Amino acid sequence: MRLRGRKGIRESLERQTDLVVLEPRNYKGKWHELFGNDRPIHVEFGMGKGQFISQMSVKYPDINFIGVDMYDELLRRGAEKARAAHETLGEENPANLRLALANIEYAEEVFAPGELERIYLNFSDPWPKSKHARRRLTHPRFLDKYRGLLNGRGEIHLKTDSVSLFEFSLNAFADYGLQMTNLSLDLHAGGINEEHVMTEYETKFVGQGMRIHRCEAIVGEEALEAYRAGRLSKYRL
Amino acid sequence: MRLRGRKGIRESLERQTDLVVLEPRNYKGKWHELFGNDRPIHVEFGMGKGQFISQMSVKYPDINFIGVDMYDELLRRGAEKARAAHETLGEENPANLRLALANIEYAEEVFAPGELERIYLNFSDPWPKSKHARRRLTHPRFLDKYRGLLNGRGEIHLKTDSVSLFEFSLNAFADYGLQMTNLSLDLHAGGINEEHVMTEYETKFVGQGMRIHRCEAIVGEEALEAYRAGRLSKYRL
Repeated sequence: MRLRGRKGIRESLERQTDLVVLEPRNYKGKWHELFGNDRPIHVEFGMGKGQFISQMSVKYPDINFIGVDMYDELLRRGAEKARAAHETLGEENPANLRLALANIEYAEEVFAPGELERIYLNFSDPWPKSKHARRRLTHPRFLDKYRGLLNGRGEIHLKTDSVSLFEFSLNAFADYGLQMTNLSLDLHAGGINEEHVMTEYETKFVGQGMRIHRCEAIVGEEALEAYRAGRLSKYRL
Repeated sequence: MRLRGRKGIRESLERQTDLVVLEPRNYKGKWHELFGNDRPIHVEFGMGKGQFISQMSVKYPDINFIGVDMYDELLRRGAEKARAAHETLGEENPANLRLALANIEYAEEVFAPGELERIYLNFSDPWPKSKHARRRLTHPRFLDKYRGLLNGRGEIHLKTDSVSLFEFSLNAFADYGLQMTNLSLDLHAGGINEEHVMTEYETKFVGQGMRIHRCEAIVGEEALEAYRAGRLSKYRL
């Protein structure tokens, strides 16, 4: 693969105003306006090469998706993947998808309080050294941010192969007082779980026997009430 | 090892009235009286060969321990182990330990409401087939029992090598609304964790690289308040 220069990448991204948002701060509080509807917004923080968010946006046309990453090159690849995925639907533009260039550290400068309904964290950097714990995307300082951005139906969906990040995250969710649900310690045990859209990384390594951990953490009050209404149904026989 | 006949085992147990309780229903609501003090009572449901409960009773002399199992032979072995462990302290009888013959199905016939402060579940049978889910010791029908027996400081401490039982248990605890804490997905990562007393099974297999999962679930209101008072301290840097 020929790597384009940084300038070339940026020029390519600048031409894709239908899909790529290079100055996402301009849309704080205006994302629904940008999508032209009031449907829920699901964001993936750390979209990487974009397979997950692209396929999600194809699978769930009634949800607005935003893939966030901080590297030009990942946005370029994500945009290619998104267009390819939506071409299969005969769509010219992926209307329910945007890819935003942003550092998650500054998420609250990009999204307004209550603007998001779901946050996906897929195979985030585990930052295994304890001195880097604050950089883990499930550290309470990030949970503070997420809680501020999520609406009443808000949830965080975490997926990782890292035992240490998953352990840290479960403790962080529990200590933070978040209701967890649909915990899985081996998502694809007994064969690929087709229910869940996979990332590039997941597709590649699950075949090699890597175990995927998954958990949902309920943040919004309305989501919590809905959960409680159906509580125990799965485990009470 | 010569296996004694069932009759011989029972006779041996009957002579050990200082340690073995063959008719534990007789002590429902009277366990503190039996121990002769008001100290907390910690119970291990499914004590197996008794290493864990024996060593715990040596390590924590100010706690009353009860090891429960449903097989004569396990009680006999447990009693041997308990006496050997307490001999190291120069004690004739393990004053803070009893071994009770009982089926956990009928736990509420053996213990009165609020009589227990902690329940240990170590390497319980995972009952992997879903049709046997109700037999798993963290099934909500058992959680119902435990909640009834535990006092305001009540906690359940779970340890298992089984991925499927641990996954089931985390979901069961979460769905049941129990606050989890001190979750570990690999308790002895980086070497034996000396802080935790090990079972025979654990001692044997951890050396072979088996991963031990552990979780505490807070049941009592007072315990929950204490937890909340110190909340986030571990993960907030």
